[in-house]
Amino acid sequence: MTAPITIALDAMGGDNAPAIVVKGANIVRERFPDVRFVFYGDKKKISSVLSKKKKLKEVSKIVHTDIFIPSDMKPSLAFRSSKGSSMRLAIEAVKEGKAHAAVSAGNTGALMAISKTVLKTLPGIDRPAMAALVPTDKGESVVLDLGANTECDHNNLVQFAIMGEVFCRTILGIKRPTVGLLNIGSEEVKGRTEIRQAAEILTEIDLPLDFQGFIEGDDLMHGAVDVVVADGFTGNIALKTLEGTAKFAFEAVRKAFKTSLSAKLAYLIARPAIRRMKARLDPRRYNGAVFLGLNGISIKSHGGADPLGYANAITLGIDMARHGFIEQTHKEVAHIAPKMAEALNGKAA
Amino acid sequence: MTAPITIALDAMGGDNAPAIVVKGANIVRERFPDVRFVFYGDKKKISSVLSKKKKLKEVSKIVHTDIFIPSDMKPSLAFRSSKGSSMRLAIEAVKEGKAHAAVSAGNTGALMAISKTVLKTLPGIDRPAMAALVPTDKGESVVLDLGANTECDHNNLVQFAIMGEVFCRTILGIKRPTVGLLNIGSEEVKGRTEIRQAAEILTEIDLPLDFQGFIEGDDLMHGAVDVVVADGFTGNIALKTLEGTAKFAFEAVRKAFKTSLSAKLAYLIARPAIRRMKARLDPRRYNGAVFLGLNGISIKSHGGADPLGYANAITLGIDMARHGFIEQTHKEVAHIAPKMAEALNGKAA
Repeated sequence: MTAPITIALDAMGGDNAPAIVVKGANIVRERFPDVRFVFYGDKKKISSVLSKKKKLKEVSKIVHTDIFIPSDMKPSLAFRSSKGSSMRLAIEAVKEGKAHAAVSAGNTGALMAISKTVLKTLPGIDRPAMAALVPTDKGESVVLDLGANTECDHNNLVQFAIMGEVFCRTILGIKRPTVGLLNIGSEEVKGRTEIRQAAEILTEIDLPLDFQGFIEGDDLMHGAVDVVVADGFTGNIALKTLEGTAKFAFEAVRKAFKTSLSAKLAYLIARPAIRRMKARLDPRRYNGAVFLGLNGISIKSHGGADPLGYANAITLGIDMARHGFIEQTHKEVAHIAPKMAEALNGKAA
Repeated sequence: MTAPITIALDAMGGDNAPAIVVKGANIVRERFPDVRFVFYGDKKKISSVLSKKKKLKEVSKIVHTDIFIPSDMKPSLAFRSSKGSSMRLAIEAVKEGKAHAAVSAGNTGALMAISKTVLKTLPGIDRPAMAALVPTDKGESVVLDLGANTECDHNNLVQFAIMGEVFCRTILGIKRPTVGLLNIGSEEVKGRTEIRQAAEILTEIDLPLDFQGFIEGDDLMHGAVDVVVADGFTGNIALKTLEGTAKFAFEAVRKAFKTSLSAKLAYLIARPAIRRMKARLDPRRYNGAVFLGLNGISIKSHGGADPLGYANAITLGIDMARHGFIEQTHKEVAHIAPKMAEALNGKAA
């Protein structure tokens, strides 16, 4: 792209906003000196942090608002009272073409509702899905949906597969990503009806993706497929269980190295190796969930992200903008839509 | 109990049957010299292993059958052709009062269908659930359902909570177990309808259990509650993700200790501590899933269990028989049934 990329930031979202947001943007500025930032929120508070980052200040703008959405507010209420809020202004900037992507560490449900309402879904997509990367034995996989849709039909699951595949191809650079449906048991007779129906469609119609069938919970971290498709309830449970278990396991290892003096010595010796391993699995590397299927880029950072984590969420937005993810998805869905409609009509009949 | 406990074993189920089954029983014999075993399956094959275990042979009987259910057979077909099979005979022995519990490492779906048909559900229970123990930061939790019911209504979930609580109290000896519903988000507005409805019932009616509300995937390994309740699809995804991630994490640690000579040295020094940690989390310790809600004890061992894992599955059956789990569940459900019916009618109205 020739024009400089601009990122709209909800400066008031997250546990330590706006400090973390400004510090995160500053890390991104070091990575991409050409990128521009717009901070939405309390001008005084943002300025007091931004004034210490001279170079960042030069490429940044602040748009003041007094309205912030609390993290713990019920999403439906938050949505209704979102007009003029820092979160909504950031997303509207994307809609209006003033920014290439919006990032927020605030209320997930509100961000989802506002993103969907303001940015709208792409033609051919019924519902957006929340996607994130997870580290695997082989590298990383894309998992979606992570909670945007508590219940899904086969149609939604097929669309998620297509969006996830485009994401994987354009952002991770995997030429022919493999796609799997998260299910119980790998046989075709097992699992929920909508999942089996989605598998039929993905097998039958000629899609530019390498559908591998069903995968199970224990296949996730082995990187069995590049794109893992599930409804938002199941995806959320799987991802959180994965995160919780990984944290537990490393904590268990850390404790094991404190049980004796010799174990402590061993830890000192092995520290470089342990650090390398931890760095690869560092949750900050994988911070940033993205709403796929919308006509614009909206990224959710963990509420408790540190500056490095926040910077990675912004970087994901930059990557998506640079690679023309929205345009690419739009094109592919338009190409696939007639085939899908045909297959879906077949199922409905 | 005064009469010796007898365990009915499907000697032909599992990857290395009957050798693993006989070896597993032999470990149990060392733990409980009073327990009796009946092996169902190919007499010749069983005898050839059993003849090497003199003491086990003295407390064992073989019931011959030529019929075995293949592990990979479609459960519905397996069920239809199960008459006279080693698996079915073992479960029928429990039904007929010839054995206190049946154990099989064979076809899960077939075992589920046969157990349900032969043993029947307890009065007041609509559907049995599959439960297992998982290691946590604090000790262990019971998770159910793990796949017996792909979809559940609020009624089923409430019954699972009650059965899981009785299991936890009688088998793990926890005086007042805490119970949680696996959901996305801990707020009352989130998640699937049937889960929110189950939460309402568990909160409203006077049950002898300590209901803690919703838990999320990352609470599982922290031991947030003693009993984790989910539908069989969600429970299966969560448990398998947990197992897969734990395996991945420990593998990553093992690899980290092979990256350099100094790391290898550190591993040697820390080995006792690492072994203690691994022993605590050893999946063999947690082998054995049980079908709760049936009028008889039926235990599923992992198909790939080794003798120690298989022995632990048998031991679970012995524990349940000794603690009168079935009688206890029967009593509690009968006591609770009127309250539940009232609450459920209230919901339906």
